[in-house]
Amino acid sequence: MSVLGLDIGGANLKAAHSCGIALSHPFELWKQPGSLADALRGLLRQLPAAELLAVTMTGELCDCFETKRQGVEAILDAVAAAAAGQAVRVWGSDGCFRDVARARAEPDRVAAANWLALARFAGRFAPRGAALVVDIGSTTTDIVPLMDGQPAPQGRTDPERLAARELVYTGIRRTPVCALLGADGAAELFANTQDVYLLLGRLAEDAEDRRTADGRPATRAAAAARLARMRCADLDSMTAEEIDELARNIRDRQLAILAEALATVTGRLPEPPRLVVAAGAGEFLVVDVLARSELLRRVPLLSLADRLGAELSTAACAYALAVLAPASVTGASGSD
Amino acid sequence: MSVLGLDIGGANLKAAHSCGIALSHPFELWKQPGSLADALRGLLRQLPAAELLAVTMTGELCDCFETKRQGVEAILDAVAAAAAGQAVRVWGSDGCFRDVARARAEPDRVAAANWLALARFAGRFAPRGAALVVDIGSTTTDIVPLMDGQPAPQGRTDPERLAARELVYTGIRRTPVCALLGADGAAELFANTQDVYLLLGRLAEDAEDRRTADGRPATRAAAAARLARMRCADLDSMTAEEIDELARNIRDRQLAILAEALATVTGRLPEPPRLVVAAGAGEFLVVDVLARSELLRRVPLLSLADRLGAELSTAACAYALAVLAPASVTGASGSD
Repeated sequence: MSVLGLDIGGANLKAAHSCGIALSHPFELWKQPGSLADALRGLLRQLPAAELLAVTMTGELCDCFETKRQGVEAILDAVAAAAAGQAVRVWGSDGCFRDVARARAEPDRVAAANWLALARFAGRFAPRGAALVVDIGSTTTDIVPLMDGQPAPQGRTDPERLAARELVYTGIRRTPVCALLGADGAAELFANTQDVYLLLGRLAEDAEDRRTADGRPATRAAAAARLARMRCADLDSMTAEEIDELARNIRDRQLAILAEALATVTGRLPEPPRLVVAAGAGEFLVVDVLARSELLRRVPLLSLADRLGAELSTAACAYALAVLAPASVTGASGSD
Repeated sequence: MSVLGLDIGGANLKAAHSCGIALSHPFELWKQPGSLADALRGLLRQLPAAELLAVTMTGELCDCFETKRQGVEAILDAVAAAAAGQAVRVWGSDGCFRDVARARAEPDRVAAANWLALARFAGRFAPRGAALVVDIGSTTTDIVPLMDGQPAPQGRTDPERLAARELVYTGIRRTPVCALLGADGAAELFANTQDVYLLLGRLAEDAEDRRTADGRPATRAAAAARLARMRCADLDSMTAEEIDELARNIRDRQLAILAEALATVTGRLPEPPRLVVAAGAGEFLVVDVLARSELLRRVPLLSLADRLGAELSTAACAYALAVLAPASVTGASGSD
């Protein structure tokens, strides 16, 4: 059975075909919710046809929608329009797929469930006993405990997962630096973590990418100017060394937040984890986070990017759906 | 000598005439730097004519400008255009006025100096010995030490003042809530402190005001929805009580930051302050901050809003310029 997995976020659309082809497409949903169906059609046209569309979403949290229920409705409308009669199944935080009508009736279940698809998929690589999936994305990080290869989360909804530290709202591109610097910088949207990792050489420059705080390019020079502004300074008054030091300081704060969350989640496991599965566009940070943790420093690490390749790994939640759907839809897999 | 004081910020333009009339006008400079001259002309038309324009600015930090030098240039261009030949003097962080040509040559001095005008003006109300000016604005807070009624700051430029905690980049309207919640909420621009103080009844609702995170009105209902989103929740899933508790939590974090900064600045004084002069649109918070401080709880408080009235107090830096300029421009006052 051929499946096309779709992961509809607030800032990115990701699609992956069960044959192993994937695409990621930046799409700022909150700025143009009315264009989602067209954007999805454009994405689908670039991939092989499939018997089934398997869908998950996080974009319902965007503030173009008054409530998440309204967001789920709008996203399902766009999916139905783009599907043009093709079979659609929607993944939920109960680990089940349902049709669109059922999904509309259960907005709480289909909202923000992509982490569970990835965790269930990643569980295939996990040994018996306890393990962790750590997926550092552009905007958020998911930390999901596994027991015997099955997801064993404390929270299911975003608010529950946020409180449980299984969802850490920090990532390698879109996180406003003011959310990390707090009172030690300007409380303005002057810079994002993308600027930090551009400067530290962990993300590649892209002069075409202007999804930055000031609309200037995602280059190291422009990133340095954006970061200087976080100290109410500029390139005339801060040296390159000082700006690099600031970038490292911000990176360290983000690592500390992630390490603390990882310690909290790990602390609830019945035994130390035997494996950490690292995933996401920010996979490179997982090693750094583990290095800060006394408990996790020596735990084996499995890189999803190594296993799947960069393209599938970037769209890993979508690919997980494409892999999980056949068994689930035909009834072979129940809920977690 | 009649003077019109102008305080050109990144989000607000403020003007005050020495006769005691003032105006504040929201203007998002970073979105439309090319319209500044027109906006200033509009403001000037609404006030009585004056022999002198006395100018200060903070808008040069806006990220529509590549550097602060470029920002100062652009703002001075707009001032010169709006002044249409009228005499202009520009205030600096050395406590002196200069003409526009001189100001262009000293961008570091004329950038972000409005705090010093207010502090020198407020010093008129201060006793001998140590005192503090605490000006909580919509975006930032200035804490300026006074000795014998004269400003005695540790820092002069924004970066210096930020490091010295004399500039605290937090205010009652524009501060992104993610800068206060950090990892305990969504690192998105979903809500500002205006939402917090709307919900807590400290700011009045204004259905016409859409300078909010989601572009919906500055009403309590819309503010509640914005705050709920900070916990990845919405009005369907959070009760009014839970959202009120979140608002108090955010307020408490802001008060803690302000109290810590106040303690740092107070700790550098040679003696406990004998007076706190409270100013700004967030004057109402000063009492709450002082109440949290063992050292300052019993220090007499002078409210600039009580002294000047709400209108002049909101444009207090501009009014301070209008009051200070005659003596300074005619040479009676030197630098601090």
